[in-house]
Amino acid sequence: MDVKIDILTLFPEMFDIFNYSIIGRAINKGILQINTFDIREFTIDKHRKVDDYPYGGGAGMVMAAQPIVDCIRKVKCQNNGKVIYLGPRGKTFNQSMAKEFSKEREMIFLCGHYEGVDERVYKYIDTEISIGDFVITGGEMACIPVVDSICRMIPGVLAKSESYMEESFYNGSLEYPQYTRPECFEGDNVPEVLLSGHHENIKKWRRMKSLVITKSKRPDLFEKLKLSTEDKKLIDLYKKNI
Amino acid sequence: MDVKIDILTLFPEMFDIFNYSIIGRAINKGILQINTFDIREFTIDKHRKVDDYPYGGGAGMVMAAQPIVDCIRKVKCQNNGKVIYLGPRGKTFNQSMAKEFSKEREMIFLCGHYEGVDERVYKYIDTEISIGDFVITGGEMACIPVVDSICRMIPGVLAKSESYMEESFYNGSLEYPQYTRPECFEGDNVPEVLLSGHHENIKKWRRMKSLVITKSKRPDLFEKLKLSTEDKKLIDLYKKNI
Repeated sequence: MDVKIDILTLFPEMFDIFNYSIIGRAINKGILQINTFDIREFTIDKHRKVDDYPYGGGAGMVMAAQPIVDCIRKVKCQNNGKVIYLGPRGKTFNQSMAKEFSKEREMIFLCGHYEGVDERVYKYIDTEISIGDFVITGGEMACIPVVDSICRMIPGVLAKSESYMEESFYNGSLEYPQYTRPECFEGDNVPEVLLSGHHENIKKWRRMKSLVITKSKRPDLFEKLKLSTEDKKLIDLYKKNI
Repeated sequence: MDVKIDILTLFPEMFDIFNYSIIGRAINKGILQINTFDIREFTIDKHRKVDDYPYGGGAGMVMAAQPIVDCIRKVKCQNNGKVIYLGPRGKTFNQSMAKEFSKEREMIFLCGHYEGVDERVYKYIDTEISIGDFVITGGEMACIPVVDSICRMIPGVLAKSESYMEESFYNGSLEYPQYTRPECFEGDNVPEVLLSGHHENIKKWRRMKSLVITKSKRPDLFEKLKLSTEDKKLIDLYKKNI
């Protein structure tokens, strides 16, 4: 019942980063299997080239179709998952997509580089994901946070003690403020309620803070929240106290 | 006139990834200087702990204020830049932010981990950036694409031949399709116009494709575009031909 992720890239070394992450731990536990495939190994060009000038002119190089398509074919022999391309035309990645993808048992990620991939590769792509509206050097730098985010949602990857945060984000609100020892740091005290041991009050305070922070920092997220009667009371209470 | 970026993290090794990128090249050229600082080196805890249980209870660990704040103070001795925290409350990063940050000469990035940082650290943070609405294991995985994206915009980092793509994204539209050799790949031909050598027609075709793709894939971006009369004609032409 482990999850298999194959990553097609020109820079397999970049994914060493997963060794320092909870993903490395999940791999060791046997929950997760991540393999990288070097697209360059699949080129039939005698100089091992994987890119070429664009037809119609213009700056930059384009990744040729042949090495990518042959690499996809090879990987598909042992992975029945969707081919997911990290590219600018994709839907912007978010937590509910992370949740959806985390239900898949097999996935194939394709990382582009240079000025993009030959358009004819799109025929072999099932889904395109964008990390956001900014330009990065290669798909790898998008693939890393996306795979991390998906893998965190796979049951068993996070220890129970770590899994808390997801829920909050998944509920569409920002995190409440967190404090740890010491009680007083350079003259700044931990809010008294958190030291009270009164669980109900702590819960209310945290929910209130979460709502107020979301409203102030991300009004777009706040708009989408379905507020309970209790939530509205908490916000009113906050307004009275400031 | 080089740019100095200091990164505060519990996982300095994660930033080895920049060696495989254009950033590594920019560092070698002396345009860019990126240093990592290990936050753990600054803890005064005898067991070298950097995190602790949250006040008020709950799952997960919180990064303590002391090691982070001492690390920030140390870095500030030689870096006058803003302290930029990669965290969920920040404004969602985009290309115009990349452009703005690329004008800075010095920057300090702070990567959080676990369930976040002690709230009292916020006093030392100038700006918070979010990579998007999804949860990742640590700020490092957000910091990498953000720093990459900013550095690409620093004059001299990209070779002239590589800098093309930025402009397109900066204009707010998605990239047009790219093709490279061979002319026919597995029965799929390069569009004739790109082989015509007619620069004006190629330009029009590319603009049309860029607009049509943006409209279909990212209607939200398309809405924000200021279309010229020529643009509108191109879209009409496309509609007639399908």
